[in-house]
Order: sequence, then C-alpha cells, then structure tokens
Amino acid sequence: MMKLNILGCHSATPLENAHTTSQVLQIKDHLFLIDCGEGTQIQLRNQKVKFSRIKHIFISHLHGDHFYGLVGLISTFRLLGRVADLHVYGPKGIKEVITLQLKLAQSWTNYDLFFHELEQKESELIFEDDSLAVRTIPLDHRIYTNGFLFEEKPGLRRLDKEKMKHYNIQYYDYQNLKLGKDIVLEDGSVLKNETVTLAPHPIKRYAFCSDTAYNTSIVSLIKNVDLLYHEATFLDAHQNLAEKTKHSTAAQAAKIAQLAEVKQLVLGHFSSRYKDKGEFLNEASPIFDKVALAADGKTFDI
Amino acid sequence: MMKLNILGCHSATPLENAHTTSQVLQIKDHLFLIDCGEGTQIQLRNQKVKFSRIKHIFISHLHGDHFYGLVGLISTFRLLGRVADLHVYGPKGIKEVITLQLKLAQSWTNYDLFFHELEQKESELIFEDDSLAVRTIPLDHRIYTNGFLFEEKPGLRRLDKEKMKHYNIQYYDYQNLKLGKDIVLEDGSVLKNETVTLAPHPIKRYAFCSDTAYNTSIVSLIKNVDLLYHEATFLDAHQNLAEKTKHSTAAQAAKIAQLAEVKQLVLGHFSSRYKDKGEFLNEASPIFDKVALAADGKTFDI
Repeated sequence: MMKLNILGCHSATPLENAHTTSQVLQIKDHLFLIDCGEGTQIQLRNQKVKFSRIKHIFISHLHGDHFYGLVGLISTFRLLGRVADLHVYGPKGIKEVITLQLKLAQSWTNYDLFFHELEQKESELIFEDDSLAVRTIPLDHRIYTNGFLFEEKPGLRRLDKEKMKHYNIQYYDYQNLKLGKDIVLEDGSVLKNETVTLAPHPIKRYAFCSDTAYNTSIVSLIKNVDLLYHEATFLDAHQNLAEKTKHSTAAQAAKIAQLAEVKQLVLGHFSSRYKDKGEFLNEASPIFDKVALAADGKTFDI
Repeated sequence: MMKLNILGCHSATPLENAHTTSQVLQIKDHLFLIDCGEGTQIQLRNQKVKFSRIKHIFISHLHGDHFYGLVGLISTFRLLGRVADLHVYGPKGIKEVITLQLKLAQSWTNYDLFFHELEQKESELIFEDDSLAVRTIPLDHRIYTNGFLFEEKPGLRRLDKEKMKHYNIQYYDYQNLKLGKDIVLEDGSVLKNETVTLAPHPIKRYAFCSDTAYNTSIVSLIKNVDLLYHEATFLDAHQNLAEKTKHSTAAQAAKIAQLAEVKQLVLGHFSSRYKDKGEFLNEASPIFDKVALAADGKTFDI
C-alpha cells in the first residue's frame, strides 16, 4: 500500500492556512518526504506524522517554497537526538547552502547527513532497495527542477494455500514457488508453477511533478502511474502567466494525465490569487475526469 | 510611544502554538523587526502587522530559531513587489547565507537589500536618525550574539499654549523656543525659555537580550531602560543546563533586571520542556517584581 499525505500544496508564500509544497509518501517500509517548504516541521507535527522515521528527503528545486523548511527540519532532528542517517536528494548547491547554515550556527548534526546532489538532465535512478526504486523526472521550470517517480518492484508470486495442501507441498519448496520456479513432486512429475501460485500483487507507482511548464516529454516516464500529482498553479485565464513563469494550468495538467493515461490525477501548487479552488476542477475534469484537488492535510490511498 | 509585539518567544524548535523568536518594535515612525525564526512571515500576517513598513531587521545571532525565517520573508517581500530598501543587521556570515539562497533560486530581490554585518565585541551604534539610535548589547552565548538597545533621542521642548497667548509670541519664534533658546520680546526684555515651555516628553528605551548566559557586564548598557526583554530559557532546576548551553534562568534574568534597575522586565525564550509557564514568574518575581511573561501575540506598551 502507498499513502500520500499532503502537508502543503500552495505556491510562492506560506500563509496560516495555505502551506507551501511538502508531502509525505508512505511506501513499503519507508516514509519519504518530498519537498520541504517553510514550516514543514510544524505541519509534520500537526499531521501527527512519526517524522523521526523519515530517512530520505527529495527536493525538486531550490525555490524557497519547496525547500526553506529543510534546514529547520534538519536542525530539529538534531535537537531531538536523532541518530539515524538522513539522505537528502536535491539539485546541486543544496549541500553548500545547508552546511553553510549549520557551520554558521556551529550546530553540526549528531547523525550522519548525506547529500545526493542532482544535475543530470535525463531521468536517473537515485534510490533503490529490494522493494522499490525512485527515479527523477526532469521538469521544465525556470531553474533546474526534477519531479520524482516512486515505483514498487514486483513482489513474489503468492502461494495458493488450498493447492499447497492438495499437492502436499513441503515448506522448503515454498521459496522456489514464490520465485516462479516449477518444482518436482515425489512421483517425479513436474508441477508447473502457475498451477499452484497466484500472480504477485500489482505494483504501485506514484509520480510527483512540481514545478513545471506544460511538458509532454515526461509522458513516457509517467505512463500509467497509479497517481500523478501535477502542479496547476494557474487557471486558463492566466495562461500567459503560466508560460512566462514556467508553470502549468489545470487544463494542461489534465492533458498530461490524459496523454500518460494515469489512473488518477491530483492537482496542487495553487496560486493564492484564486479563492475558489473548485475552478481548478472545473477546468481539468472535461479533459481528464479522474481528478482531485490536493489540500493541506488531505491524504490519498494509492 | 513605543509598542512591542511578540510574534514568537520560544526556544529551539517551532511548534504550532509556540513560535521561535521574533518581535516587532514600533517606535517613532519605524517598524523594526527583531529576530526572525522560521514562520515569522506567517506570524506577521496573523498579527496583522503592516509588514511592508518594515525597513530594518535586527538579527541577534545565527542559530536557526532566530533567523531561519529571514530568507523566506525576504523572498516574500520580492513576490509582493516591494520597492523600498531593506536593511539587515546581523552577525558576519548572514550576507553570504542569504545571498547564496537567492542565487540558487535565481531570485534576486527587485528592491535594494543592504547587509550590515556585525563582528565587534564592544557595544556599537548601528543605526541612527533624528529621533532614535540603536546600539548592540554584546551577549555571552555559544556563538557570536548581540542584543539590541533601542533609544529615543530627546525631543524638543513643548510650547505652553496659554503662555504663547499671554506673551503674544509670534509663530516664527516657536522653533527657537522648542530648541530651548530664550527670545527677546518687543519691549526689548529677554524672555527665559523655561518661563513659557515645558520639558520634552521623556525618552523611552527598550533592551532586547536573547540569547545569553547570566552576564552582569550588560548592566551598565541597559541601566534604567523602560523595558528589558531578557531570555529565561530555564528554571532553577536546570541551572546546570543553562550554564552548559549559555542560557539564563528566570532568576538570573530577574537579577539582571534588579541590578540594572529597569522599569519593567519581560521574560521569554522558554524551553518547551516546561508546560506551566507560571513557574517562570514564581521564580523571577521574588527577585524583581515588575516582571511579565512574553507570549506569542502579546503586546507591551512602553
């Protein structure tokens, strides 16, 4: 199961009830933090996230509304006596700016802090373990920016309990069956794997795309994802502003979702100029109807 | 009139209802911001401060709970289309860390931003105009830290309206009288200034002292101030922690207030370990009874 918790989904400037970009992705045994606008540590507490469990933080780009809360969170981890390693993935420069602040404060972390600086313009694998992988999604913004694709790896085949009994299969054959291998029965006959196992649970994929101009080159990377979070800073009326600032409109986000045939679209990164967020739905849903709006504190099961 | 607005008065880590250090001092025509912990820009909005009027920001030291909100505020000023100059006074290093972040974001301010970096260990005059002066108060903390003394200049003598009529004094003599000079009447006699004028309004002085260990060397600088804000991170039970971290207890803050014979003491910078803030009053008031507790959102007329 994947679960997405929106901590903030507004652009530019934090307000009391409109936090800048940050979200927590619960996937397998991980709690990943994606972007970290000012005040993210307060939102993590408000949302009752067990944030000491966060070991990996992914920063899309170095505009303040996506990372000004990072140094404060790193400092708070220190004050809370963290010992676990922390890995930060973000654009080149992020290490210098964070370490400069720790140096000026003479407050080095008492845990190991690793920076994985990104500068490639092609999608790259940046994290991998037995159960999942994370890849960058190069975006088209005013400064170097990546989205992130979180992808589970296929699990093992599942044993059919009834069939285990029926064929009197011994436990020491289970692992071979889970790995998809056929086995030899006591009478010397070969038992085909698919006779007694079920397909693995389907893998889940989540794509985070913020901030970006309308950019169809990401479509192949995010094809068929279970959930696409795509920025929609503007409405149609301000398409000129979207172009100028390299942001997207709600309709453009919907078009990307349609082209990529994603299962669900969530819009976010709203400009504060719009009081009625319902307009984003109105403009997106004629193009792609499996669409929802992000909101601070909202969660999505993937 | 001076008015102090506490935006945050808690130490270490911001919580939803416990903001880190920041305060606004309204004095003469100025709105001064003192320290700027993470989320200060949100508190400025919550407290309905007309924060575009802030032209001078004073940063005591480069621990995160006193300045992590500065870069966000500077960025927000840019987004709001600010044109007025902004002056930042703070320890050496503050310019590098702020400008590095603006550079990485490729988001230079569209207003002029001036840094006045401090590194002197003696008190120095850092701001002055016709009506007031600001001086540093060197403090004793783990890193280079200054408090700030805000001091009005004596105003002009005030004209006694009845006496103006009685002596038939002409308006072109008013300025001489305000400046304390005697004037010559039409009959050739000399009119002594004090016969027709009143003393200027008394000047007001405010001293901000956070963060600091117990340090009597500041007493002469803050002698008789109208209001002293002094940090009281700990209670007596944790005096050892206060010594180790170079902070003060409530009793030590009260002792400084007593030695300096200040008119009023406000305690702040409370550690989050204490749920009952009333204990700070209980420990301070036997030593100095004109004492109050800071609280986020509280204002003090000086």
